[in-house]
Amino acid sequence: MAIGAGIEQGGRVGDRLTVGVAARLSRYLQVLTQAKKDGRERISSQEISEYTNINATQIRRDLSGFGKFGKRGVGYSIDGLIAEIRKILRTQGQHNIALFGAGRLGQAIANSTVFADHGFNIAAVFDVDASKVGQPIGKTVVGPYADMKDAIREKNIIVGVLAVPPAAAQAVTNDLVDAGVKIIFNYSEALLNVPADVTVHTTNPAAELLYALYFYLT
Amino acid sequence: MAIGAGIEQGGRVGDRLTVGVAARLSRYLQVLTQAKKDGRERISSQEISEYTNINATQIRRDLSGFGKFGKRGVGYSIDGLIAEIRKILRTQGQHNIALFGAGRLGQAIANSTVFADHGFNIAAVFDVDASKVGQPIGKTVVGPYADMKDAIREKNIIVGVLAVPPAAAQAVTNDLVDAGVKIIFNYSEALLNVPADVTVHTTNPAAELLYALYFYLT
Repeated sequence: MAIGAGIEQGGRVGDRLTVGVAARLSRYLQVLTQAKKDGRERISSQEISEYTNINATQIRRDLSGFGKFGKRGVGYSIDGLIAEIRKILRTQGQHNIALFGAGRLGQAIANSTVFADHGFNIAAVFDVDASKVGQPIGKTVVGPYADMKDAIREKNIIVGVLAVPPAAAQAVTNDLVDAGVKIIFNYSEALLNVPADVTVHTTNPAAELLYALYFYLT
Repeated sequence: MAIGAGIEQGGRVGDRLTVGVAARLSRYLQVLTQAKKDGRERISSQEISEYTNINATQIRRDLSGFGKFGKRGVGYSIDGLIAEIRKILRTQGQHNIALFGAGRLGQAIANSTVFADHGFNIAAVFDVDASKVGQPIGKTVVGPYADMKDAIREKNIIVGVLAVPPAAAQAVTNDLVDAGVKIIFNYSEALLNVPADVTVHTTNPAAELLYALYFYLT
């Protein structure tokens, strides 16, 4: 199960994938999952390239590294690739996440299938607004924020998703860190201070647009 | 205004930044903008590193490449860096964007300051649902989808943001391409077919979570 791309591009450090390979595999997985939802059974490296902006040669090299070879004019089996990549990323099965904030953004997230499609179950949603507590949201019900630490322990929640106002984000982060959560997905754009063993992913749509705009303008 | 990082890391191709440098500058800009909103005046490379997960040495090299040097114990002037990076990215000024879809996600986007903070003005919002047309959203009013091509021309819209259901995304994309829009920001997760001169950015929160999860689990 060695990653062929590792030799030139990084690959594994010890028994881990490098960040570059893991990031690319995650992107392939997203495209493959969406293609499967669209009813597709096979996909070519060229198509994956068009959807990810990753070079098709790089894609073929990454996939051949774990024994997957596309057939010319036929492409790769989507189901086969999804299973293999999830095995390599060790992210098979269901993972419970908690969502903080049941406003417009929180509702959009809870009602989207984007996380469920990749094995993430929104197991709990919290808000500090008493008028929202008890209301249905997605497949669950908004819980009172005071219950968050118990819920994180009982439901084995490993990711906290922040859809709260920027001014509230650090306080929720501190509580998540106290509760032992190591991955925070930050939709608030606030800058968050966390210990070194906690990973924060902040969404950056405007940064991505500026980046696209630069290449458009030049 | 040469980018010092260019020698080892890419830098410029002809008179353009490489994708790596442009992507990093966009990320720095996002952190700097948020820090300014938080009332900060200065920031260190170490802090930018913590918020972006980009190596602090790389950051100092990128910034020194255009003559910005942080002072030890004092850091960089936030206002100065913002102005310089926007100049280098040639993204000063206001850019008009159009939002498609006025549902939960569209409302969350229209009411967020994330695009406005970086000079993107949501100049028009469209929906096919007649009950939404005419309703206020963000700083504008939902317009009928049939008006989109006229609005794109009249308002000089250069980016289309898709917050429509996946099944509707390709049709909107086709209309945007026909209208001459070259940058599409796709919140729908649908796989979109576009001509080679059009750039699609698809949000990938689940892919980012899988990636974070991999490093957490291993």
